Amino acid sequence: MQNIEEKLLSYAGKVEHFLSQSISTDDKDLLSLYASMRYSVMAGGKRIRPFLVLTVSKMFGGKEENAIYLAAALEMVHTYSLIHDDLPCMDDDDLRRGKPTNHKIYGEAVATLAGDALLTGAFELIAASGLSDKAVRMAVLTLASAAGADGMVGGQVMDLSSSEQKEQDFNRLIKMHSLKTGALIAAAVKLGLLAAENEKEADRHALTSYARYLGLAFQIVDDVLDVLGDEEEMGKQTGKDKEAGKTTFLHYFSPEEAMQYAKDLTDLAKGCVKDYENAQTLTQLADYLLERKK
Amino acid sequence: MQNIEEKLLSYAGKVEHFLSQSISTDDKDLLSLYASMRYSVMAGGKRIRPFLVLTVSKMFGGKEENAIYLAAALEMVHTYSLIHDDLPCMDDDDLRRGKPTNHKIYGEAVATLAGDALLTGAFELIAASGLSDKAVRMAVLTLASAAGADGMVGGQVMDLSSSEQKEQDFNRLIKMHSLKTGALIAAAVKLGLLAAENEKEADRHALTSYARYLGLAFQIVDDVLDVLGDEEEMGKQTGKDKEAGKTTFLHYFSPEEAMQYAKDLTDLAKGCVKDYENAQTLTQLADYLLERKK
Repeated sequence: MQNIEEKLLSYAGKVEHFLSQSISTDDKDLLSLYASMRYSVMAGGKRIRPFLVLTVSKMFGGKEENAIYLAAALEMVHTYSLIHDDLPCMDDDDLRRGKPTNHKIYGEAVATLAGDALLTGAFELIAASGLSDKAVRMAVLTLASAAGADGMVGGQVMDLSSSEQKEQDFNRLIKMHSLKTGALIAAAVKLGLLAAENEKEADRHALTSYARYLGLAFQIVDDVLDVLGDEEEMGKQTGKDKEAGKTTFLHYFSPEEAMQYAKDLTDLAKGCVKDYENAQTLTQLADYLLERKK
Repeated sequence: MQNIEEKLLSYAGKVEHFLSQSISTDDKDLLSLYASMRYSVMAGGKRIRPFLVLTVSKMFGGKEENAIYLAAALEMVHTYSLIHDDLPCMDDDDLRRGKPTNHKIYGEAVATLAGDALLTGAFELIAASGLSDKAVRMAVLTLASAAGADGMVGGQVMDLSSSEQKEQDFNRLIKMHSLKTGALIAAAVKLGLLAAENEKEADRHALTSYARYLGLAFQIVDDVLDVLGDEEEMGKQTGKDKEAGKTTFLHYFSPEEAMQYAKDLTDLAKGCVKDYENAQTLTQLADYLLERKK
């Protein structure tokens, strides 16, 4: 049996190949825009979100040739959010995955527009898939509501204002993460079900609950790694949260307590999918994300 | 018979009412984001694009209750593009339609995110419409391809780099405008046909040609108004193009020649729809946009 790292690499390769083919142009007037889009899209990363789309689609009998459209679309939305998040007017980050951030290479204007184009292109990709018209409509609705004002963008606005309020209420912190990262991770499993044209409410409920616990555990580990992680291994500056005056889970817990909390959430995530015979990859993924060092 | 200004006002009112209802929240954590989105969406403007959607839909027997979703979605995309275009890293404008630009009120970070949320919300709105699944898919594809890297965003990137090249080639200028503003105006008539579930290629061709000529004439008049227009009436600073070193149509034509060119294009636009009995509103609109003073 493949271990989870091999599985992640295998799907990441497929998604990157698909993205590379989807985001290309022969138009010389648009080369700088496409170069900027490709720079961030092809910058690596664990590709967790597309992995979830493809894994869930496979679990429920979906065709990979359809699911890959939704997986790539979701990764484009994730990438656009990173480009905009790194801008000077937002988190003002110079480094992402060990490389200069997009605006450091292409300038703020092109970086902003590359993000806009990736977000727009994600919906184009979904509409161009081989899925049924109904599944396309549902996928657009799922992705847009997860990524928009009541989802990821809303979470980003909450995150911005959190640095202004020194002691963030714990429930507000959970809500912020639930919107900022949780919504897109939950969208991943929903898109996987749509790729398999699966409309069963019980499956949707179980998988979404899995994704919600997984997303929160992921964020807690992220906060711990920001304090205890190895800067070189992580490919980005650590200690940024504290420097920015942001409240993290380590405001409420010691690193050990936080990791225990993440472990409990991981167990809850695994419990949500325990009745599926072929959920082993989802279980492995949850453990892998808990134990990661970057 | 209503004159064109009355028709514009009537549809603008409907679109604004619909947008106002669509973009609202009770979530106090998201109030600043929604306020920023609403600020720009409700800032007025001629609402040409949604007007075209609603007018074309009506011409071909579409239901207004469906078309309004596509009209509002298109206006949200147009509005997001204005917010991002006004940012300091782009055109750095302080004034839009006589009011401070979005980032002047809400800051660059929230303005960027409000733009992102409007773009995302446009696709959510389309998917939530009462149109058939097939029409929804086609509308998403139409809007995304018009607004993305090979459409509006591509045009914006060309516009950015134009200020670096002092003498822009005439064909490049036409192409830039065709992408930056033409694509979305062409999308408007296509969305109108989709709202009416009309798939006739001949109609699509005639209406798209109309929109292409209309869009180019609109841009030429825009360039003339930027030089000769009344600043107070226009609600924005004039002479900005020259100041920014941008090549406009007035680099190739005198104002009188440019207006003659716009008139010729307007005649061509009207010619594209002359065989439709009920195209009077489209004809009136073309004349109105040619003769406008702001």
